[in-house]
This record gives sequence, structure tokens and C-alpha cells, in this order.
Amino acid sequence: MYDVTIAADARSIALSAGTTAPVRFHAIWLRDNAWDPETRSPGNGQRLIALRDIPADTAIASAEVAGNKLRVTFTPEGKTVDYDIAWLLAHAYDRAHAQGRGRAAPRIETWDSGLMSAVPVADFAVVKSDPAALRGWLAQVARYGFGKLTNGPVRDGALFDVVDLFGYVRETNYGRHFEVRTEVNPTNLAYTGLGLQAHTDNPYRDPVPSVQVLYCLESSAAGGENMVVDGFRAAERLKAENPDWFDVLSRHCARFEYAGSEGVVLRSRRPMIELAPDGELVAVRFNNRSTAAITDVPFDEMETYYAAYRRFGEIIDDPTMEVTFRLNPGESFVVDNTRVLHARKGYSGTGTRWLQGCYADKDGLLSKLAALSGSFAEAAE
Amino acid sequence: MYDVTIAADARSIALSAGTTAPVRFHAIWLRDNAWDPETRSPGNGQRLIALRDIPADTAIASAEVAGNKLRVTFTPEGKTVDYDIAWLLAHAYDRAHAQGRGRAAPRIETWDSGLMSAVPVADFAVVKSDPAALRGWLAQVARYGFGKLTNGPVRDGALFDVVDLFGYVRETNYGRHFEVRTEVNPTNLAYTGLGLQAHTDNPYRDPVPSVQVLYCLESSAAGGENMVVDGFRAAERLKAENPDWFDVLSRHCARFEYAGSEGVVLRSRRPMIELAPDGELVAVRFNNRSTAAITDVPFDEMETYYAAYRRFGEIIDDPTMEVTFRLNPGESFVVDNTRVLHARKGYSGTGTRWLQGCYADKDGLLSKLAALSGSFAEAAE
Repeated sequence: MYDVTIAADARSIALSAGTTAPVRFHAIWLRDNAWDPETRSPGNGQRLIALRDIPADTAIASAEVAGNKLRVTFTPEGKTVDYDIAWLLAHAYDRAHAQGRGRAAPRIETWDSGLMSAVPVADFAVVKSDPAALRGWLAQVARYGFGKLTNGPVRDGALFDVVDLFGYVRETNYGRHFEVRTEVNPTNLAYTGLGLQAHTDNPYRDPVPSVQVLYCLESSAAGGENMVVDGFRAAERLKAENPDWFDVLSRHCARFEYAGSEGVVLRSRRPMIELAPDGELVAVRFNNRSTAAITDVPFDEMETYYAAYRRFGEIIDDPTMEVTFRLNPGESFVVDNTRVLHARKGYSGTGTRWLQGCYADKDGLLSKLAALSGSFAEAAE
Repeated sequence: MYDVTIAADARSIALSAGTTAPVRFHAIWLRDNAWDPETRSPGNGQRLIALRDIPADTAIASAEVAGNKLRVTFTPEGKTVDYDIAWLLAHAYDRAHAQGRGRAAPRIETWDSGLMSAVPVADFAVVKSDPAALRGWLAQVARYGFGKLTNGPVRDGALFDVVDLFGYVRETNYGRHFEVRTEVNPTNLAYTGLGLQAHTDNPYRDPVPSVQVLYCLESSAAGGENMVVDGFRAAERLKAENPDWFDVLSRHCARFEYAGSEGVVLRSRRPMIELAPDGELVAVRFNNRSTAAITDVPFDEMETYYAAYRRFGEIIDDPTMEVTFRLNPGESFVVDNTRVLHARKGYSGTGTRWLQGCYADKDGLLSKLAALSGSFAEAAE
């Protein structure tokens, strides 16, 4: 089924499956990615050797296909290693590499208000007891950057039960959790009318908390809906409208600062739109309250920067971008704070609103999802 | 002492102090960075308005200097704001901006084994009780990326007292802390001889834990010194030796993975040398044990990538790069895990070695340092 040929310089092989184009792998890459028990721990999959233990002049002595295995012998070590061909093809790098600046990662999906009819939601009691349901909900959180939970306990600290589903609390100067408590009455309606602009939390923190949990314990006031906006979709829109504006926000660092409590002076220097070196969207930071003086943009680009920053905010404010939902007592939501902005709508009428919030991190969430998805066996293969 | 002139289009001003070149500021930047009580909360310094609240056609109606203040009136708002000229000049962006890829941030200093004679060290009991001493030690940790503490308690969990000096534990799947315990005896000397290559911890985690604390509780074995290497200096050296090799490690994402425990599948996609968009060094990730198959490098660059990765490791292994020190019971060290690699030397003889380790984050550490340095008053000005 598969054919293998060795390049003339013996530094790579080409694997082909009849009609498809051959896929090449270098000798040094193959040797470094051997899964034999001297190279990788059979127990935990960790590499037991370093690149320094592999000769720099590693080349292919022989290569042959046997069924779904590729057997390669390397010089000068004289070492023979078997590879699973499916694993090799799944990790092929001899391919067109996505290069577009501002593209979303393959496994995520950006959205706008059209998602309102399909807000990712699950029943807390169900996901707590059913791993498949938990996997389904975490997959939605990973794909859309947020997810709601209903039917949770109405109890001080219940938000930690949500974090326990997937990870660990990130404690900060605000504590392990913080209170969001408001008394709404006619005399302070003016203040609630101020309307928080959608934002990411704590952009002045580096590393930024990558997950936020908000848990509702009381909600007797009308209004006060939660609103989320996909910052990655906003970045995509900005780029489609004006590539120069996208560029100026991604090529220069902004500055963020919070010094509102005694003994706390948090500062960061990161772009509002952060990209991986190959252009994939990594993070959005947007928070008017804590944006500090921007000093890393050259004079000749500052007006363009401000035009871009303004337009980015307008896109974020555009009602066609927002998804709103109400949290009732025992309901909560989880948001990817590196991507999805959140805000609270104003209140009307009287009543109380009590939420508890905390931070956590995406590494735990994505690890839990991968483990539930059975990737464990593949990863430790 | 100062002169101010308004540009013909009224979109910027130029501030000059006699002999020095004028420094320009845009109207929109000035307006956005006003510190009047309608723009910034006098209490916590947070901005009370968003850019959407500032007219896009903001221009300068008038500007005048009075002593150390600049008074600007903006159109169309008709709003007058006073600026502290020293603050403006400290935040000037009309200047040459550093552009070199791979440069270290201004407030850090890279090092090699020459630092061995001046390892940043402080007495735990002193820094715990004396804020000035704590500030001095934290300043060294921020500058050099690591610091040692002596004279701490020999007590299970004492490492948390170290974290309490500056921040908060980052809990992970390894717990709030982890044990590093070894029985050294002749029958397992072979294993200790394996020699861990210097590495950063948990590169498979995103966000990576940005601080690690290692605390010694028992150390009766000879050897087992701790060793640290400045990853930023290693990156600088790689660039000096071969700019293409520096580029290939910074322009492409590596992949890291850990799936060694049941229910844990941690994966990240980040470059080994991470730069800010303007080229400043942000982080180094280097860990042979958890580097996964690298699949984001095009075929034509993979051999260059491996040559660069190999040379980067050789530089890291170079004894002229390393600083070693011994931890005795009650001694600990803190390391910036986004920058400084660490390793443990092999043992000789018999005995026991017991360390406890945990993770924390740099935001807290740098915040504590800034607060102790009196920046609080300036930041909330």
C-alpha cells in the first residue's frame, strides 16, 4: 500500500501511497521522534535523550514498508526504529503551512450574534457525573471560547465546583475568588446605566488569567444580562475592513496597568491582538479601564493606531457581534479570557444581584478535554 | 523653561526644552491620557471613559506651558486638561524605537558563568521582615531571572512562605507543590549520572508557570548542586553566531506535550524563542523531555531548524553559561521560568536529598517589586 524511497543524500525519505503526492521526512526528525523504549519512556512518553545524544550527521541507511509500519535504520548509530505510518502522516510537515496573519486555529470557530440561538450550555449536575457530557461541553468551550452551565447549587463557593470540573483556580491579589455584588434601586440606577464596555479581564497581568468563571447566586433585578463578544471574530472583521489597522494593533505592544489597591502595581506590555509568529491568533486584550499610556508606537503610526483601536472598539460594541444570556441563581459561565470579551448589561427596576467570580487556566481545561477525548492513548503511544 | 507649539493641522503639539529636540504628542493621545477626574478615577487610576467617548476629530484648540505643567484645550469638546510635563516626557513615544529582534528588555541584564561570583542571594528572615531588603532581592530576581534565599525554616511546606513574599501559588495537576526526593546510594548511582539537561519547566503548559520555587529540606548527599542558565543570553549568543538559526527558532512554533499521568494531556504550540511583535525577548522554552513532534516548520526549513535547535542546546550546555550553587536545608531559589533554565547536577556518595517545589507567577512578583519601589504613587497619580 505504501512505498518509501530514500533521497540521494540519504538525509530524508519520501513516503507515498499510490496516487497521493509523496510526503517527505528528514532523517534527523525521524530519529528525534522515534518511539522506541531507549528514546521515549514507555511509561510516560517523555523523551529520555536530548538532541545532543543524536549524531548531527544522522542519515538513512535503509527504509522499508511492512504493512502499516515503516522500518528505518539510521547511520551512524546503526539503530533501527519502527514507525506507525498513520502517526507519521498525522504529523507530516511536508505540506502547505497556513501563513495568513490573523487566522483562527483550526479547532476553533469564530462567531457573532448568530450564535445566540445555540449558546453552548450544559446541566451542571449532568456534566459533573457524566464524562461524555463533560467532554461535549468542554469541547464547545474550547471551540467557541465560552459556555454556560445551568442547574448548579446555590451556595457560597459553588464556583469552585465548576473549576473542579476541569482545572485549578488561579489565585491573584483579588483572592481565590471575588464578589460581584450589586444592590439595585432607583437612587443608583444612574450608575448601573454607565454600561461596562465588553472587555477581557486583567490584561495588565502577564500571564493573563486564561479562564474566568462567573457564578450567579442571586438575581432578583430585571436586566443585568451577561454579554460576550468573540474577540477573534472582531480581529478578523478589523482585518477584513482594513488590513493596516489589523497590522498596527498586532505589530505594536499596548501597555496595561492596574494600581488601584495598596501594594499592587500590575503592568504588562502586550499587543491588543497577539499573534503566533506564523500569524495564528493567540490572544486579544481589550480593556479601556486599564489601558495605560501607549508608548511603543512610533509617532508616525500613532494616529493610525488610534484609528484602529477606535474601530476595534466599535466592532466590539456592534450589537451584531454580541451574544447575551441571563444567569439565574445556580447558573454560571466559563469564558476563555484570552479570546472572548464579556460585559454586563445595565439593570432596570430594583433588586439584588450577586455573582462570584474566579480565574483559572486553559491548560487544565484543554488537558481535561483531551484526556476525555481519548487522546491519552495516542499521546503516550 | 519649556515651549509648546501647535502643528498646522492642530492634530499634535511639539514640546521643547531649549536645546533638546522637540517631542511631539498627538491630540488624541493626549486626550486619551488625560488624568482629570472625569477621565480617570482619582481613587484607583482606572480610566472612566472609553475611546468611543472621545470624538474622533479631537484636535488642539490651545496649548500653553505654565512652569512644569502643560495646559491643553481640546476641540470639539472644549475640554481643558493640565499635564505634568515630566510625566509626558517620561511617556514620550516620539523617539527612536528599539527594533532589534532578540534584544533583552531594558530593565533586565543577561549573564553567563561570570555571575557565579555574585549570585543574587538574600537572607529569608531579613527579606521577610524588611521591605527594603525584600525590594532589593526582588529587584535582583527581576533583573537576573533568579535569586537564592538562605536561612529559611526547615519545615514541610516552608516553600509557601517564600511564595508569600511576593505572590500566589499556581496550582496545577501536580498539586500546589511537588516533592523532589531522592535516596542516593551506590546501587542507583548510575541513574543519577544521567544528568538532566538544563530546561524550563512545563513548556507544554499554556500559560506556562512563570515562576518556580525550589526549597531544600534535606541534603546529605555530596553533589546535587543546582545549576541555572540564562536562556535569554543563550538566545543572544545563538543570534550572534548565526542570525538564521535564531530566526528559525523564533519564527516557527515548536510543540510540547506531556501525557504522563492518567487524565492529563497537556499540549502547547509556542516557539522555543518567543519574541514580542517588536522583537523584544519574551520567553524561552527548552525541554528535551517534553518536546513533541515539530510539525509547524516547512520541509525546506526543517534541517535548518534542527541545526539551530542543536546549537541552542550546545550553548545551553556550555559550562561558560552556567551558574551553580548548592542548596542546603532551609535554602531555596526562585527562578523566572520564562527565561532561566535550571538543572540539577549528579550526586556522588550516599545520602538523601529532599526538595519541595511549586509554581507561581511573575505578575505578582513584579507587582510587589513595583509597589515596594514606590511606583504606586506615580502609577495612581
